[in-house]
Amino acid sequence: MASDKPMRQQVEEYISTLQDEIVNAFEVLDPSAPKFRRDAWVRPQGGRGVSCVFAVPHPTSPAAGQQPSNATTVLEKAGVNISIVHGSLPPAAVRQMRADHGSLQGLDADAKGALPFFAAGISLVIHPRNPHAPTVHANYRYFEIADKADTTGSGSAPSEPANTQKPLAWWFGGGSDLTPSYLYEPDAVHFHATLRDAAAPHGAALYPVFKQWCDEYFYLPHRGEARGIGGIFFDDLCDEDHKTFAGFGEVDGEPADKGRPRSPEAILRMVKDLGNAFVPSYIPILKQRTNTPHTAAERRWQLLRRGRYVEFNLVYDRGTRFGLLTPGARIESVLMSLPEEARWEYYSDMGGPGTREGEVVEVLQKPKAWLQ
Amino acid sequence: MASDKPMRQQVEEYISTLQDEIVNAFEVLDPSAPKFRRDAWVRPQGGRGVSCVFAVPHPTSPAAGQQPSNATTVLEKAGVNISIVHGSLPPAAVRQMRADHGSLQGLDADAKGALPFFAAGISLVIHPRNPHAPTVHANYRYFEIADKADTTGSGSAPSEPANTQKPLAWWFGGGSDLTPSYLYEPDAVHFHATLRDAAAPHGAALYPVFKQWCDEYFYLPHRGEARGIGGIFFDDLCDEDHKTFAGFGEVDGEPADKGRPRSPEAILRMVKDLGNAFVPSYIPILKQRTNTPHTAAERRWQLLRRGRYVEFNLVYDRGTRFGLLTPGARIESVLMSLPEEARWEYYSDMGGPGTREGEVVEVLQKPKAWLQ
Repeated sequence: MASDKPMRQQVEEYISTLQDEIVNAFEVLDPSAPKFRRDAWVRPQGGRGVSCVFAVPHPTSPAAGQQPSNATTVLEKAGVNISIVHGSLPPAAVRQMRADHGSLQGLDADAKGALPFFAAGISLVIHPRNPHAPTVHANYRYFEIADKADTTGSGSAPSEPANTQKPLAWWFGGGSDLTPSYLYEPDAVHFHATLRDAAAPHGAALYPVFKQWCDEYFYLPHRGEARGIGGIFFDDLCDEDHKTFAGFGEVDGEPADKGRPRSPEAILRMVKDLGNAFVPSYIPILKQRTNTPHTAAERRWQLLRRGRYVEFNLVYDRGTRFGLLTPGARIESVLMSLPEEARWEYYSDMGGPGTREGEVVEVLQKPKAWLQ
Repeated sequence: MASDKPMRQQVEEYISTLQDEIVNAFEVLDPSAPKFRRDAWVRPQGGRGVSCVFAVPHPTSPAAGQQPSNATTVLEKAGVNISIVHGSLPPAAVRQMRADHGSLQGLDADAKGALPFFAAGISLVIHPRNPHAPTVHANYRYFEIADKADTTGSGSAPSEPANTQKPLAWWFGGGSDLTPSYLYEPDAVHFHATLRDAAAPHGAALYPVFKQWCDEYFYLPHRGEARGIGGIFFDDLCDEDHKTFAGFGEVDGEPADKGRPRSPEAILRMVKDLGNAFVPSYIPILKQRTNTPHTAAERRWQLLRRGRYVEFNLVYDRGTRFGLLTPGARIESVLMSLPEEARWEYYSDMGGPGTREGEVVEVLQKPKAWLQ
């Protein structure tokens, strides 16, 4: 049943509910840990957000008073953020944003002019403390670009932009992917299967397309490695033909770009099912691995893998680079994805063939079909 | 007295000598520390290099056997690298390289074609262990771009490219800058004064222009902070008029772009004086700060500042991004600039006004004229 609320509002309500649910799931899992810090913020140029961030204060921090100095929390650092922002996009940010978006062709001719935009999304990165528990990321987002005649935001309150005009372009993007330091094949299978099952009611092509897209997107060419063991990724999903789907060929005898959700309402329904799958896709894995005994060498390997995570996010991730280029972006929220600590070694002796560390390197170098 | 050797060879000989001298200076300073690892390498696509890297093996590494587990070395991680490479540059790397280079205008029309290039340089980053001792970076480099008729490299041995043709373009770049976690004003003055004095014989405008350029280049817009307390930086230095010098205005009543070195030989003489100034600009500072007692909180602040160093190098540094984009680049050498460990905190409580940490933040937010 279609809602008669504007899509902007439907997305805003959903991501807000999902954020609460996810933060709550982590707090319930580890009741003796400090609570997530919840920061509501307003963007002076238009919009608002809520950042929910977990960290244990460093022993030297004044805030550490009540904490045990040797942290035993399940999480090491985590952020679950939402933002609902609008304003004018500078050309560099438009370029960062529109990588594959066909319907924005008209922009090139006028690349110096800023365009009104609306963007709402939830973005989370969870770095657990135990080296055997994987890092996870998820992000679901909705964009609108208006043409210049749009009066979005002018004269209205920051969180209530004018929304009376059909957008010049709109699209959804998102995904979720897992980054273990140590490979546990059942975890990879569980994570992928949960996402596949959530996508299935919305089209048979979705999981196969999104899985491959994830392997391609979360890739560090300079390392010849994927960031993690994959999951799902999609972008530029709207009512137009989509070149990634078109290029995928057929699934179950039907072109992949047929039979996928196309209307805003249908795509939002899919996004909700994927977003709701986050907790069941990840929390059982975290529960199972969080008490695995580990050595100093395994902690060292985890920090080395976190170095690669930093490399991907700062060098390649479009969301992060979009944030860095957006004037007035809340940098502390954009960079909450970075781990508490990371390590770099010149030609590390860890990760060679035949070792537990090498097992994960092998699947990063050659993405695997986890579900057959 | 001008050498009759080709410029490529003169540069190669100089950076090789300078590398030995610098590595030796660090080894003499800390004789009980492990030696730098010296890795000579050959680039399959053309060229060679030598990476000299310092690190103390992690206690869990098989190599740690002979080391005390609680490292007390002066350095924590350091790399002093040279590379002398040639080949064809892909368009993305050409764009990364030519940011301000006027004489490469012709490239746009043919941006899909690769061009033969030669590049030789020395690049170093030193991360000392003590939080009161600053990180330092220096880099001096020489580029040539040939036109397509050039047969550079084809048929000749990797380190001896054909060099009979006048290059389509050539230029020098380089600089040296200091990144303290804690501010010691006398250190900043010593570092800047040493570089100013080395540049002085080559033109009165050099230090003022290079100093300002350094403050502008090593800047993180998303943090509103410089990477460090500056030093010198220059790029695209050749015999053509230079827009950065021209834009600087007058120094001592003369246009800055007049009276600076223009011929390859004159610029190389300047580069040699600057390169030779590295050891006297930095080693006395390191000697003085290496035994300063420090706390766990100061170590934490150092790791937070190293996080910013990682952000600059991965997000903005042209040399690093050039390396990441160059096929066949030796990634472990490109990324030797990254610290052994780095840390990120969401809205850290460190660095506020009125603290020792805040002192350095203040000069990063507002670059200072150290020499008056």
